[in-house]
Order: sequence, then C-alpha cells, then structure tokens
Amino acid sequence: MAAILPDLATQVLVPAAAVVGIAFAVVQWVLVSKVKMTAERRGGEGSPGAAAGKDGGAASEYLIEEEEGLNEHNVVEKCSEIQHAISEGATSFLFTEYKYVGLFMGIFAVLIFLFLGSVEGFSTKSQPCHYSKDRMCKPALANAIFSTVAFVLGAVTSLVSGFLGMKIATYANARTTLEARKGVGKAFITAFRSGAVMGFLLAASGLVVLYIAINLFGIYYGDDWEGLFEAITGYGLGGSSMALFGRVGGGIYTKAADVGADLVGKVERNIPEDDPRNPAVIADNVGDNVGDIAGMGSDLFGSYAESSCAALVVASISSFGINHEFTPMLYPLLISSVGIIACLITTLFATDFFEIKAVDEIEPALKKQLIISTVVMTVGIVLVSWLGLPYSFTIFNFGAQKTVYNWQLFLCVAVGLWAGLIIGFVTEYYTSNAYSPVQDVADSCRTGAATNVIFGLALGYKSVIIPIFAIAFSIFLSFSLAAMYGVAVAALGMLSTIATGLAIDAYGPISDNAGGIAEMAGMSHRIRERTDALDAAGNTTAAIGKGFAIGSAALVSLALFGAFVSRAAISTVDVLTPKVFIGLIVGAMLPYWFSAMTMKSVGSAALKMVEEVRRQFNSIPGLMEGTTKPDYATCVKISTDASIKEMIPPGALVMLSPLIVGIFFGVETLSGLLAGALVSGVQIAISASNTGGAWDNAKKYIEAGASEHARTLGPKGSDCHKAAVIGDTIGDPLKDTSGPSLNILIKLMAVESLVFAPFFATHGGILFKWF
Amino acid sequence: MAAILPDLATQVLVPAAAVVGIAFAVVQWVLVSKVKMTAERRGGEGSPGAAAGKDGGAASEYLIEEEEGLNEHNVVEKCSEIQHAISEGATSFLFTEYKYVGLFMGIFAVLIFLFLGSVEGFSTKSQPCHYSKDRMCKPALANAIFSTVAFVLGAVTSLVSGFLGMKIATYANARTTLEARKGVGKAFITAFRSGAVMGFLLAASGLVVLYIAINLFGIYYGDDWEGLFEAITGYGLGGSSMALFGRVGGGIYTKAADVGADLVGKVERNIPEDDPRNPAVIADNVGDNVGDIAGMGSDLFGSYAESSCAALVVASISSFGINHEFTPMLYPLLISSVGIIACLITTLFATDFFEIKAVDEIEPALKKQLIISTVVMTVGIVLVSWLGLPYSFTIFNFGAQKTVYNWQLFLCVAVGLWAGLIIGFVTEYYTSNAYSPVQDVADSCRTGAATNVIFGLALGYKSVIIPIFAIAFSIFLSFSLAAMYGVAVAALGMLSTIATGLAIDAYGPISDNAGGIAEMAGMSHRIRERTDALDAAGNTTAAIGKGFAIGSAALVSLALFGAFVSRAAISTVDVLTPKVFIGLIVGAMLPYWFSAMTMKSVGSAALKMVEEVRRQFNSIPGLMEGTTKPDYATCVKISTDASIKEMIPPGALVMLSPLIVGIFFGVETLSGLLAGALVSGVQIAISASNTGGAWDNAKKYIEAGASEHARTLGPKGSDCHKAAVIGDTIGDPLKDTSGPSLNILIKLMAVESLVFAPFFATHGGILFKWF
Repeated sequence: MAAILPDLATQVLVPAAAVVGIAFAVVQWVLVSKVKMTAERRGGEGSPGAAAGKDGGAASEYLIEEEEGLNEHNVVEKCSEIQHAISEGATSFLFTEYKYVGLFMGIFAVLIFLFLGSVEGFSTKSQPCHYSKDRMCKPALANAIFSTVAFVLGAVTSLVSGFLGMKIATYANARTTLEARKGVGKAFITAFRSGAVMGFLLAASGLVVLYIAINLFGIYYGDDWEGLFEAITGYGLGGSSMALFGRVGGGIYTKAADVGADLVGKVERNIPEDDPRNPAVIADNVGDNVGDIAGMGSDLFGSYAESSCAALVVASISSFGINHEFTPMLYPLLISSVGIIACLITTLFATDFFEIKAVDEIEPALKKQLIISTVVMTVGIVLVSWLGLPYSFTIFNFGAQKTVYNWQLFLCVAVGLWAGLIIGFVTEYYTSNAYSPVQDVADSCRTGAATNVIFGLALGYKSVIIPIFAIAFSIFLSFSLAAMYGVAVAALGMLSTIATGLAIDAYGPISDNAGGIAEMAGMSHRIRERTDALDAAGNTTAAIGKGFAIGSAALVSLALFGAFVSRAAISTVDVLTPKVFIGLIVGAMLPYWFSAMTMKSVGSAALKMVEEVRRQFNSIPGLMEGTTKPDYATCVKISTDASIKEMIPPGALVMLSPLIVGIFFGVETLSGLLAGALVSGVQIAISASNTGGAWDNAKKYIEAGASEHARTLGPKGSDCHKAAVIGDTIGDPLKDTSGPSLNILIKLMAVESLVFAPFFATHGGILFKWF
Repeated sequence: MAAILPDLATQVLVPAAAVVGIAFAVVQWVLVSKVKMTAERRGGEGSPGAAAGKDGGAASEYLIEEEEGLNEHNVVEKCSEIQHAISEGATSFLFTEYKYVGLFMGIFAVLIFLFLGSVEGFSTKSQPCHYSKDRMCKPALANAIFSTVAFVLGAVTSLVSGFLGMKIATYANARTTLEARKGVGKAFITAFRSGAVMGFLLAASGLVVLYIAINLFGIYYGDDWEGLFEAITGYGLGGSSMALFGRVGGGIYTKAADVGADLVGKVERNIPEDDPRNPAVIADNVGDNVGDIAGMGSDLFGSYAESSCAALVVASISSFGINHEFTPMLYPLLISSVGIIACLITTLFATDFFEIKAVDEIEPALKKQLIISTVVMTVGIVLVSWLGLPYSFTIFNFGAQKTVYNWQLFLCVAVGLWAGLIIGFVTEYYTSNAYSPVQDVADSCRTGAATNVIFGLALGYKSVIIPIFAIAFSIFLSFSLAAMYGVAVAALGMLSTIATGLAIDAYGPISDNAGGIAEMAGMSHRIRERTDALDAAGNTTAAIGKGFAIGSAALVSLALFGAFVSRAAISTVDVLTPKVFIGLIVGAMLPYWFSAMTMKSVGSAALKMVEEVRRQFNSIPGLMEGTTKPDYATCVKISTDASIKEMIPPGALVMLSPLIVGIFFGVETLSGLLAGALVSGVQIAISASNTGGAWDNAKKYIEAGASEHARTLGPKGSDCHKAAVIGDTIGDPLKDTSGPSLNILIKLMAVESLVFAPFFATHGGILFKWF
C-alpha cells in the first residue's frame, strides 16, 4: 500500500514550504525595518540601521517622544550609536569564535573521514549492506566522504542560523526601544516580529538544506538508501557540534559580562542595571545576542537536524527505505514543512489578528501562541499522517520488524507535540512571577539570600517532576507504538512548532537589549518600565524555550541512541552487565563534570570582569558622575577571551567522551554512557533552567512591586531586593550557561556515537580485547 | 572442596568478635566517664552526667581551668546544666519521632505480612523452591511471617543504635568541653573515644542480632536456606526504613534550628554562634545529636545490614547455599567480625599509641585512622578469604552459574575497601580548608555571596568525578569476578571498617556540641578555639563519612538490585524497552523530587524558627543584654513539630514509589526505576554533601585566619565573612538533610523491592495486564 500523496508532490511541497517560510521571514523583516533609526538623513555608516535609513526620512511621525518631550534627534542618534556598538561587539565576537571553532571543526571533519574510512580499510569496492546482506551497498569510504560533507553542511547551516539570528536581534533591539515610546503594544510587535524572522529563517533553512542534501547525495547513492541516510546523520552531528560551542562560548560570554556588571554596578555602586556608566554594560548587551540568540538558534537548529536525521536513518532500514517509498520516507520533512505553515498562521494571531494594549496582556499573548500553534499543528499532523503515509508499514525494531499503522504514527507525533505544550506550561508555572512558586521564592528573601537560594534550588528540583512524567509518557507511548521511529517522530512533533518557539524565545533577549538601550540612551523611566515588562515575560518564555529544547533533546537523544544501538548491532543494553552499568553510572556523572566546568568558567571570567570594572570605577575620574565614558572595549575583550579559552575544556569533554569510551571500552559501555547521560542530564538541565528563571523573576517581582505582597518586599535597594539580586546572579550561569548546554551534551554524544557507530563496531573496545 | 575453617569455629568466632567489640566499647565508655561532670557531689537528677557522678568526687584534679582561672564549680555546673538540657531535648525528640515512626512501621509490617502472604494465597503447604524446582521449600506464608519479624528486628536494632549513639554523644559533649581546658589532645581523645563507643556498639550489635536471627530462623527453616535468607532480608529493610526517618527527621530538625539560629543570631544580631542569648541555641545543639549522630548511626547500620543481607541472599542460591556449607555461607559475617578486630587495633593508634599535642595534628591523626584501618583490614580479608572460603565455588549469576576462586572474592572485598579509602581522600581534598578547592571558594567570597555559591556548587559537581570512577571501577571488577555476590561483598568491604568510620564521624558533632557548650557556659575564647579546631576537622570527617555512606550505598543498592532481579525472575534489564526506559528516567528524577521536599521543609521550618527567634529578641526585655534567659523550649518545640510533620511526605515518597511502580507497572519498570534512582542519586548525594562541607569550611577558614591569604579575607564580620556565612547556611540542608538522605533513598527502594519481589512477580504490573 502506498501513500496518498504522490512522490512528485512531496518533491514540490517540501521546498515550497521552505520558500514560504523564508518569504514570510522577509515580510516580517520589512515590517520591522519600517521603524527608522535615523531621525534625519544620517545613514550609511554600515550599521544595520543604515540599511533602513535608505527608505526612511518621511517617517518622522513615528519618532515622537510623546510623554517626555526629549530631544528626539538626540535620542534616536544615541540609540543608533549603542545599537551599532552592540552589533559590532557581537559580530566581532562571533567571528573570533567561528575562527577557533572552524579550526576544531576542520580537525574533527578529518577525524570523521579517517575513522569511518578505516572501517573497510578505505576500500572503494561495494560491500554487502549492513541490514540486508543480500544486497550490495556503497563502500564505507563513500560513507566517510558523505558523512564528512554532511557534517560540514550541518555546521555551516548552524553557524549561519546563529549568525543571522544575532544580526536580526541587534537590528531589532533599538527599534524595539524606539517603539516602546509609542506604547507597549508597538514595542511588543517589533520584538516579536524580529523573533519571527529568526524563527522562520532557521526552520526553513534547516529544512531546505537537508532536502537539497538528500537529493544531491541521492544522485550518488541511487537506491542505497541505507547508506544515504547513514551519511545524512553527519548533518545532525555538524549542527550539534556547532551548537555546543555556540551555547557554551556564548553562555560564558553573556554570563561573565552579566554577573560582572551586576556585582559591581548593582551591588557595590548601587547604579541601575544597564547604566551607561558601567564599563561592562556593552559586553552585557552583546552577551544577550551571542548567548541567548545565536547560541540558542544553533541549539534548536541542532535538535531539529538531529531528530530529522534520527527519524530518517531508522526509516531507511524500515519498509519505506527497503521498498523505496519516497513520500513516507520523507515523512519527517513533511512534518516540518507543515510545521512552518502552522507557525505562520499562529504568528498572525500575535501580530495581526489581535493587538497588545497593556502590559498584562503580554504573557497571555505568548501563551496563546503556544496553544494555537499546538492546536493548528495537530490538524497538520493528521493531514500529513493521512496523506503522507501508507495505512500500514513495518518499522525496524532492534533486529525485529514491527507493523505500524498511520494513525499510530500520528499519535507518536501528537504526543510529542502536546508533551511539549505541557512542559511549556509547567515551566511557565514555575518561572513566571504570576504564580505562587516564584512568589514564595521572593517571599523567602525576607530572611536573606540563604533562604532565597534554598527555596530557589528546591523549586528547580520540584519543577522537574511533571516534565519528566510528560517525557516518560511520550516515550512510553511512541516507543510502544513504533519503536525508535516513534520516539524520533515524537521529538519532531515537539520541534514541529520550532518557528513559533524560536520567535517567542528570541523575543526575550531582544526586549532585554531594548531595555538596556533605553537605559543607556538616558530615555525616560516609563520606557524602561515597558521594556522591563516585556523582558519579564521574556524570562518566562526563555525558560519555556529551554524546557522545549530539553524535552525535545531527551526524545531526540533516545531516538539517536536507538539508531546507534541498531547500527552498532547490539541486541540489548542490559543494565545488569558490568560493561553497561559502569557506562550508565559514569554517563550520569558527565553532566555534573560538564556543569562544574562551565560554572567555574563563568565564575572565573566574572571575577576578572569585576576586577576590571572596579579598576575603571576607581581609576577613571568622572566616571561615576557620568562626565567621562568608560572603556567598554576592554570589558568586551575580557568576555571574548574568557569564553574562547573556557569553552574548549567542556567542549572537549563532550566531543571526546563518546570517542574514548567507544574506542577503549566498546559499544556496550558507550550505550550505558549515553543512557546515563540522558537520564541524569535532563534533570539537571530542567532544574538549572527553572531555578535560574525563577530567581530572575523573583527579583523582577520585587522590583515591579505590582501587588501588595510585592511592595512589602521592595523597593529596589531594600534588604529583600539585595537578597533577590544575589539569587538572580547565581541563577545566571545555571539558566544561561550550564543548564541549556546540557541538552546539547546529551544530544551530541548520542549523534556522535551514531555517526561513529560503524567504526566502534569494527575497531572499538580495544581495552576489553586486550585483557 | 570445603573451607579450612570448621563450621563450629565460625559459630564461635562471629559472636566472639561481637562480644569483643561490645567489651571494647564499654572500656572506652569507662575511660570517657572518668571525666567528672560534678565538681562537688551534686549528681543524681537523672541526667547521664548523674551516672558518672556516682564514682566522682575525688577527681577534682581534672577540673583546673589552668589558663583563665575561672570559677571551676560554676563552669562545671553550667556545662552540666547545658548538657542536661541538650540530652533532654534530644531524648524527648527521639521519643516523639519513634512514636510516629513506630506507628508507620507497624502499618508497614502488616503490609509486608499481607503482601508476601498473599503470594501463595496464605497457603500453609510447602511449595517447590523458587530456584531449584526439584526441592521443596517452606510456604510463602512462612516467608511473610519471618520477613515481618526480621523487619521489626532490623527497625528496632536501628532505633537502638541511633538512640544509644545519641545518648553517648550527649554524655560526651560537655566532657569534651571540660577536657579542652587541659589541651586539645585531651579533648580530642574524649571526643574520639566517645565516637568509638558508638562505632563499636553499633557494628557489634548489628552483627550479633543478625547472627542470632539467622540461627533462630534456621531452627524453623532447616535446610531451606533459600527461604531463610530471603526472610532475613527483612532485617535490612527494617534497618533502612528506620534510618530513612531518622535521617530525614533528624536532618530537618537540626538544620531548621541551625539555619534559624544563624540567620537571626549571626547575620542580624551579630552575636557569635552558640551564644546563650540566642533562643534557638539549644535546639541547634540538640539537632547535632539527633541528626548527625542518631540519624547517621541508623543510616550506616542500615547500609551494613543491607549489604550483609544482599550478600547472604545471593550466596544462599549459590553453591554455598545449595550444598549447605555453613562457613562460606557466613563469609559476609566473618568479614564484619574481622572488621571489628581490625578497627579495634586501629583505634588504639589514635587513643593510646600516639598523642595529639597540637591543633594541626588532628586532621592527620584522623586520616591515619582511615589508612591504618584499611591496611589492617586488607590483611584481615586475606585471612578470611583463605580460611573461610573453599578454593573454588559457583555463584548464581542471573540464571547462569559462574565459577569463582577465593582469591577473586578477596579482590572483590578489597576493591570495595580501597575504593572507600579513595573516596574518603577525595572528599577530604574537596572539603578540607587545607587544600586549594575550599580556599578558592573562600577567595570567591571577595566578590560576594553569589560567586561563593557559584564556586561552591561547581566544586560539589567536580568532586563527583573521582568517586564515581572509583565506584565504577569497583563495580566493574567485582561484578566481572563474582557477579552480584562480588558487588555485595565489595560493599561489605567498604563497610567493614564501619566502627572506625563511625568513630570518626561521631567525633565531629560531639566536638561541635562541645564548642557550643563552651560558648554557652561563657568559657574563655581559647577553649572555643580548640573546640573549633576539632570541629573543623570534624566537618571534613563528616564529609568523609558521608562519602563512605554514599559509596557503600551505591554498591549495596546494586547488589540488592541484582538480588531483586534474580528473585523477580527477570533475565535482562534492557534499557531499550519502553517499560524499563520510563522507569530509568523517572527513577533518575526521584532524587530531585525528594531533595525538593527536604530542602523546602528545612527552608520553611527555618523561616518559622527565624520568626520565633526574632519575636523573642524583640519582646523579651534584657535578652540581648544577657540579663534574661530566652525561651529555649519553644524553639525546641518548633524544630520537633516541623521535623515530625515534614518527614512524612519524603518518607512516603521513598517507601511508596517501589510499591506503586511494582504493583501497577511491574518488575521491569521497577528495575529501571531502581537503576535510574541509583545512578542519579549517587551524584546529587556526593555533590550536595561536598558543596555543603566546603562552604562550611570556607567560612571556618576565614574565621580562623590561619594563613596570610585567610587573613586578607577576614576577620569575622567582614563582607567576605558575611558572604561565607550565606554559603554555609545554604550548605546546611544540602549536606545534612537532602544529601545524606539520598543514599538511604537508593538503598531503601532497592531493599524494599527485594523484599516485595515475590509479591510483585506474582501480582505486580496490573496496569499493563489491564491494557
């Protein structure tokens, strides 16, 4: 039985969806660019603002500082200047980062080629296929070459995704500030549209590159789909490796600057956040863009690429692959295509169908985005599963075949999608200051920083419970219905609304930056209050985004793990064998090791930053009075140097662990390692993100003083508030460095094991072979 | 081939070793009691001090306040009074705790009887044995009855162990204070001897009760050793259940009081720790005894009982059991017997062979204890393995039989023993302020509490690495050599020096109390400095003790888990089945859930304590001036009520999780749950304990100001010191409540699953049966 959708239609629909996504992103970008950064024709210094300047001029109706009557020219010029500085800092950091990472990627690409090529001794002769021995497949050397190419493609796409995201965000931040003068609704739309540009660009480019790679590789591979999709997994590895360095490097950058700026500025000197007198303030704002935007973009792209690859590789050895059914084979890509359309509709609800008028409408609007995208996408999945799949088919299940019906696969995708929504809501509950958990944490500040920390940690631990049950349930259902293929498509389901997810995510740091720019440009307090409200909602959505990223990482890793086990020809991963058990317990330790490294890195880098900021305050006369400018560049340099240097050890830990374990201890121990890292890493990642988010919003809760209770704790500068600031500072590396990097750790180790599986299966475990 | 040691010799040696241990404990106690608590004949109010008073009087030569010339009568009387108050508070809390726990235990005993009895429908007929179907075994009803009896025995022994420990500690604390007047060496010996009393009593009573139970149960069971040792596992369950409540209840008690006292006293009122004006000070000192002493005693007794039971139950279905070889069968008990003798020799090195003269000799002396006991015990294991085992024998290995040689079993025990030593040293390295990790944490206080917390958390995470490798290596070796029996005896090896371990452990809180009493009795600062030095070493040893407890818990749990899997007739625990995987990921979440509960409990109880202490300071006139006494009793009551109330939810979580999962999801999911909880819990437990220990000693490092570096951070009351106090306070629940309770969580869930295995195997998994 074949799918209803003809293969040709699939060949057209997938790229078409990608093109629609890109077009939509461009439209959003044009709308954002209508906010002019030039009050008079000044443009053309090469800043992103200059591009917008070309069709500007008549737009001065936008630039009325309605309430305060400040000199508009001055304000806009200042904003433009600051935007320029942030954009420049971020660009220069990313280029430095890419230089080092590029070197590493080059070496790693060579390793992939050598290791995979050595499986059959670099022979150029065709070999019997791995899964169906009666047929001939392309040689391991081809796999080595194409895996390497796919790896590079994935890395480059990830890099471009992150970079574009950063460019868009630094383009949008000052525009959001300026729009905030006209009202919170306008500012929201600008920030959200910019997030959407990034979300749609990333989802579409990830899809289209993968699609092209499959078609190009297919020219060589012909009907050897097993080999084709095995090589394609390199794409996931490339995406994730890049994401690792993006997240870790960006995470260290942003938090070193943030912690350093806060410790001296807010705690010692008692000046507000983002005050232009603080020498670390530009570094701090640059950090938001390289860490939360570029890092996160790479991360989610990695998840998306990996879950697609995991699903494809499992499908290729199932009936779709064996019978060469093109449309069902591309079911994962069809899901993503429909996802883009579903997200497009969803976005309109936020930008066009409704309008935000007051501060308290922001969070509900973002929440609605999650719900709408989930509901629309559920319909989309029904369509794809009905049209794109045969009524029944068989799936590879660790050596056995399992019959699956299309409605069962629908359930797998849907359970992932809805589990994502549940994780999102739970995360919101635990990190938004509209609910009691964060309010309790804020309340505990009455007795000082210690109780704040104790309550915050406890909150993070507690917030793990429901997400884990949600993940466990989706795994159980999808695993039972369609084995590892089910798990892979469940992960895809969770990520199918990635464009909306990213839009919501990116909106946070853009608003954060917008607030910073308002402060630095000396704009009125009302503007800052509006951007703060946007930012508080952004904290929650950032936590939700991390929740999604972690949940999907768990599913993706399991699917990759399953694919690895199949490829390495292990029939069971029995905890009750010593080889597996030691892998399991050591694997469960790796996230701790990794977190220790990244947190220590942030701490040390922050200390250096603190010293520099203190030095400047003490040695530059007139700095505190605002008559002289601080030396922003040195702080930017400290963050850059620290993050480049410090990202290497944790990066090496993640990249080398599977290689060392695979080579020396073999595939059984490696399986244990992956399972251990997965089940332990998920917990730390969720708790770290939520603890950090909760502390941040507890602080904001006290600062905003929106309720009777909050006012008893405040105002800014009170003892309670100081305790809350300490919690916030501790939470910074947890929520923005170690926590979110952990989901890359578990995914990356799994996809790396999968790519190297042929090598490990042939040459691995030398330690046990010797003894 | 039989063992060299005749069965009769075994029958004599085991109880003889226990008697020697008890005799040694009594001798140590007599030596401690020579320190008189009565300057003049006052005794007889029923306090423990009164007992010593009977043969006192002529001993006033001891009571010379050499250096300060304070009124001795007054000082001794004051100490005695305070001791009395602490002892009374501790006794009354433990009685209250036991009342509630007793009720729970009663209900649980009934559950055990009903569940296990129902396996064969309460039939009284003999049945074919589980492992050798050709023979007849006692009915399941007998198993139900004897398991219940063993459970009660274990609970009572654990209770008595904890209670006796507390009594000894509260008997020794004031004596240590008084001895500190004569020098740090005398004080050390008093505290250490008292610890030894507890260590030897506990090790000996654990051994003798188990020995008697085996012999008594044997009268009924005859040659059905399979049934006999299955029933004996109830002993481990009883011990551990009691330990759970002891640790959690005691942990909440002590930390609520400690955090509460510190937050108001040290942070707000700027009065020293243990100042008698602080209303929570008695509760704080009571807490040390009910948490760190009684709780830890119960905990280590539980580990000991469980590892013995695990080894015995595996041995009973191996060749020893099948061929009824008594001496090899009792190999685990022989190990413990030799352990008592080895520890006895070791103790003499600390108390008689050498003398401590200066403060900086304390830590090396304690470290030497660890090394000496390990070396002596290694010789002991050689002897026992040579004499007590046949040259070769077969071990049950998940359905298969495996041939093992006696030297292999020696290696298993030895690797456990030496892994324990490594864990001890690593723990010392990360928690003692003699090394750079803690000094770095102290240094990070320069930039405030936030960096202190970040560095402390990172330190805890990092400290996990080597212990996990040590545990993984011992598991790999012992598992490969002798399957689960190997793992069980490796755990026993780690615990074989329990008497010394406990002596070192108990010494810490006794010194802590001694310092408290010195402060409260208004003794000179020199005394306090001495007890502080003892206490700082005690912090490190407490962390070492926790390291041992966690390491052994990991091995014990794995052994119990293996026994459970055998008993539940599961052949593999394959991670790649949905049932197992969901168990694994949910199991890895349980330690977080549990920690969230316990930390929140400490936080809330501390808040109540803070309010009460503040209220007293504000409403009792003359309290700050020291002219009126605070109302200690209310604070004691707050701690008591909070801990009794708050210990129930986490206790229920641990006790009910295996039952619920076993009944509804069946044994495969339960296996996953146990494995997940084990590999995840070990990490959090180690990192929490070490983080807390490091913060505590970082604070002490600043306070002591013993180095140039330390003096730049101090003195007491400086900003650095304040930041360090915040870290210390956060560490309190981590290191004394949630951390150490976690090892009980993983052990208890495993032993409970083992005891209920016959029931789960017969009636479990109803959810999957329905659908």
